[in-house]
Amino acid sequence: MSVAAILAGDVPTAARLIRDLDDRRPDAVAMVKALWPHTGRAYIIGVTGNPGAGKSSLVDSLISHYRAAGDRVGVIAIDPSSPFSGGALLGDRVRMQRHALDPGVFIRSLATRGHLGGLSRSTFEAAHVLDAMGFERILIETVGVGQDEVEVMDAAHTTVVVSVPGLGDEVQAMKAGLLEVADVLVVNKSDREGAERTAGDLRTMLRLRASRTHEVEVVSTVATRGVAHGSGIAELAAAIEKHRSTAWTGPGAAARAAARARAQIESLVRTLLAERASRLLASRVSDPATDPWTVAEELVAAHMSSGSR
Amino acid sequence: MSVAAILAGDVPTAARLIRDLDDRRPDAVAMVKALWPHTGRAYIIGVTGNPGAGKSSLVDSLISHYRAAGDRVGVIAIDPSSPFSGGALLGDRVRMQRHALDPGVFIRSLATRGHLGGLSRSTFEAAHVLDAMGFERILIETVGVGQDEVEVMDAAHTTVVVSVPGLGDEVQAMKAGLLEVADVLVVNKSDREGAERTAGDLRTMLRLRASRTHEVEVVSTVATRGVAHGSGIAELAAAIEKHRSTAWTGPGAAARAAARARAQIESLVRTLLAERASRLLASRVSDPATDPWTVAEELVAAHMSSGSR
Repeated sequence: MSVAAILAGDVPTAARLIRDLDDRRPDAVAMVKALWPHTGRAYIIGVTGNPGAGKSSLVDSLISHYRAAGDRVGVIAIDPSSPFSGGALLGDRVRMQRHALDPGVFIRSLATRGHLGGLSRSTFEAAHVLDAMGFERILIETVGVGQDEVEVMDAAHTTVVVSVPGLGDEVQAMKAGLLEVADVLVVNKSDREGAERTAGDLRTMLRLRASRTHEVEVVSTVATRGVAHGSGIAELAAAIEKHRSTAWTGPGAAARAAARARAQIESLVRTLLAERASRLLASRVSDPATDPWTVAEELVAAHMSSGSR
Repeated sequence: MSVAAILAGDVPTAARLIRDLDDRRPDAVAMVKALWPHTGRAYIIGVTGNPGAGKSSLVDSLISHYRAAGDRVGVIAIDPSSPFSGGALLGDRVRMQRHALDPGVFIRSLATRGHLGGLSRSTFEAAHVLDAMGFERILIETVGVGQDEVEVMDAAHTTVVVSVPGLGDEVQAMKAGLLEVADVLVVNKSDREGAERTAGDLRTMLRLRASRTHEVEVVSTVATRGVAHGSGIAELAAAIEKHRSTAWTGPGAAARAAARARAQIESLVRTLLAERASRLLASRVSDPATDPWTVAEELVAAHMSSGSR
């Protein structure tokens, strides 16, 4: 493996590096450190939402849109039901093949099961590799349920939250946290009944929320097949660009960049500590008479730090 | 707060203890340690599955079933779309009120957003409090998407995974991890078209999976309102009892209990270390020139342990 191969966009080298990073091979970590000065040019877009919202179709449409504009596109798929990550039905997968043959598109899927917190670290690292490879756009697709999955969005510059018409539950789930991370809201499958009302409900909720740090646009799309196929995709891309210019240039941009850098360091510190936790537990002799709180405290106290406060 | 009040089943004391545990108040941790010798009698049942599978209706039906059998029932609701946790539509909530008035039922909801890994710790601790209060059955309801949410099921003796008919995506999501944690599989809303086929698909997947450590029963239920309301609930309860007797008595039970105890200690160690990570990051002076991997390693190395390997 060489830094030059990654910078030249060599796909087998990149694929191996991402795999080796997941295995925490020291040479892979050294490599990603060496790539660091060559990153920071890609624009990273997160696409999240409940299962069944049509995130994959939307990502598929965005790939086509950005390719038509001449951008190279990297995709990181985390959603287990995504055709990008190999989890969808045959028809969807066949549809994706066209991008697989396009050398301007590179798709990587990351496993959702592993060390808790490891998912956001893996996402950050894969995004760095794709950034160094020179992809102008990086799309991250993940399910929006689950804390680890929501934290993945820390890696994105713009987070797109995808909803569909007519689901009361969907709107409820939004309330529970997804709305807070959204930079752009999409009502996908908007040729379905109730699309207007869902968009209206979301706009109302946006007005009512406590922390109105920035304006969130609501865009209606039809990413799936049918008469209205592709409807709203240009509008979605425009909403993403609008968020990009307001959030990442001008006042507040530096603080935002610092918060993003901090999120990455946090996920790295957490996984380093989690590795320690595994080693601690492996060395433990079981004693069912002692309560687990005392056992955990003693383990941490005995093996760790004089230096921590 | 006193241990005696909890053991006597005093609801306000228990509610305060659970809240104080979430705030990591030292007196609350001391209290839960003191409760430790008084726990271990409750049988804990986890109910998980994708949003929209009807988990809350199923939990509602199970409460009625166990109450009719004379058991007192504690409920821990983590699913943000659950009426138990305050996230559902009005109709559902009204329906739940009957249990709220029953002194033999105690419902607590836990927040899904907070420290990563904190959810499984909070669930274990709330389950301990309910156990000490003398509830014979504890039901834990959570969404089955997300790593943190799946780890919550480590607290359960029997994990029930809920599916619904006709969703290809649903079966796909099962493949991605939920199937591995299931002790009993439910096809809920089984009066819908395609219920037979879904049950058949799940049975096929069960036969094909790599790790067949124990038999998993597939039960068809109709927990929602309608002609067939309550259908299959007695069968589900019987399947849970069957799993209880095979898994928690006889050979393998001791190893299983040790693994469960280990999972709790692991979640406690992880959150203790996460607290350290937060303190480490708070003390960090930002330097954008250094790559984040080096920053994270230096932070951990400087503040931690000579004693760890």
